[in-house]
Amino acid sequence: MSMTRYLARCEAINSLLCVGLDSDIHALPERFKTSATPQLDFNQWIIDQTHQYTCSYKLNSAFYEARGAQGWQEMAQTVAYIQANHPDIFTICDAKRADIGNTNRGYVEAIFDEIGFDAITLHPYLGGKALAPFLERDDKVSIILCRTSNPDSAELQGLTVGDDKPLWLHVAETIAQKWNDNKNCMLVMGATYPDELKAVRDAVGDDVPFLVPGIGAQGGDIALTVQSGQNSVGGGMLINASRGIIFTDNPAESAKSLYEAINQYRTTPA
Amino acid sequence: MSMTRYLARCEAINSLLCVGLDSDIHALPERFKTSATPQLDFNQWIIDQTHQYTCSYKLNSAFYEARGAQGWQEMAQTVAYIQANHPDIFTICDAKRADIGNTNRGYVEAIFDEIGFDAITLHPYLGGKALAPFLERDDKVSIILCRTSNPDSAELQGLTVGDDKPLWLHVAETIAQKWNDNKNCMLVMGATYPDELKAVRDAVGDDVPFLVPGIGAQGGDIALTVQSGQNSVGGGMLINASRGIIFTDNPAESAKSLYEAINQYRTTPA
Repeated sequence: MSMTRYLARCEAINSLLCVGLDSDIHALPERFKTSATPQLDFNQWIIDQTHQYTCSYKLNSAFYEARGAQGWQEMAQTVAYIQANHPDIFTICDAKRADIGNTNRGYVEAIFDEIGFDAITLHPYLGGKALAPFLERDDKVSIILCRTSNPDSAELQGLTVGDDKPLWLHVAETIAQKWNDNKNCMLVMGATYPDELKAVRDAVGDDVPFLVPGIGAQGGDIALTVQSGQNSVGGGMLINASRGIIFTDNPAESAKSLYEAINQYRTTPA
Repeated sequence: MSMTRYLARCEAINSLLCVGLDSDIHALPERFKTSATPQLDFNQWIIDQTHQYTCSYKLNSAFYEARGAQGWQEMAQTVAYIQANHPDIFTICDAKRADIGNTNRGYVEAIFDEIGFDAITLHPYLGGKALAPFLERDDKVSIILCRTSNPDSAELQGLTVGDDKPLWLHVAETIAQKWNDNKNCMLVMGATYPDELKAVRDAVGDDVPFLVPGIGAQGGDIALTVQSGQNSVGGGMLINASRGIIFTDNPAESAKSLYEAINQYRTTPA
């Protein structure tokens, strides 16, 4: 059960950190670019030096698909490497998929079964019934976009809907109340909107974890993010950093430092 | 310019038909399953007998990704086959993507540049600024989900938003007025909702074409779809059929028959 594994890993190493393997081929250090499998080699190098601090690795599929079938292969090989060496680390495919009903089975096969990711990110726009092939997989985790970290995410997400709430809050409540029968949903909540993080935490309670991008390059503040988004036992979040770890001079030190900064602000139970 | 090519093809063969290459490996005729490239071979067989009736081929990426890197390769090879043999046919990657800002450049590279599709389908939830890497490509077409064909699509799309409209109508107007500076947007409008088709056509005018899935297996009616969605010159739509053509006993006859049925209901200019 992927949700159980996520919780166990968080607790075992006392970490809310998620390392984003946004391994853009154009941004890799030069020494990797000449390899036959540049993204895989780079990822292995990052994993070898950051695994002790991270609860999860998140691979954004866009950076792999950009290289076609070869990139797809290296994404799969990266997950295999994590599973072989650190089988307790939670793996997320940040693919932002969603099609209607049965068509989603293709993505389920690809991401959950072929590659073996624990979780996938999804768009909510088609509704909960359309997402059934993901949601029915109680052994896996569906991470659904709610309030995203980009500067103009309010254009649609901030619209006031029928019940006099912003759409992002309506989406959060709908997921928590109607789509989460298998207790396998998480929400994507951007660190750049701490008030919304707090409002959604209040609305959904302790048991729906958040995947939180937007720290670092996008401007999200660590203290505010942790204080606004954590649940009553100082957990319930995976705080993602990508460029701020993988493309620094010392990824191990960057991961350790963020791991510690996050923990400094958590309200741990007495 | 892909939009120009779409319009030229529609006019040249007087067709609103789009053939969906939803070439699910599990559903292929047995004789293709033993091939080293089953989806490519099947697609070539379909293309060879349907090209004279179709304005466009739409490949849903879920069915290809289900086979990992090999499926991805066959999707790309299918597009290469269409471009080599029928370069005037408009090609759509029904990938339903959307990430934030620069991350989308990975998908742009993959779908538009590496494979060379004319168009991609996109989720609107992250907002127009997030989709800039797609929308800025004035040589390509962005086809954005508006009112989808699935039975429960109203769960979020039907919410009444601030300006007292359903979300799907607000999305349609936002795209037409704010995201379409390069006149390269289309909307996904399900054939299963003819009233909505009509309302959106009235709202956006003649120049925003619709991609219309939902005919056939999903229950959309051809006459109602054409009458509700066409623009003032009997165009502005790509009506998609997948299973109803590719998995019939005689795909050529099924394509011809749908092509003719659609044209029967078009209001052609005097």
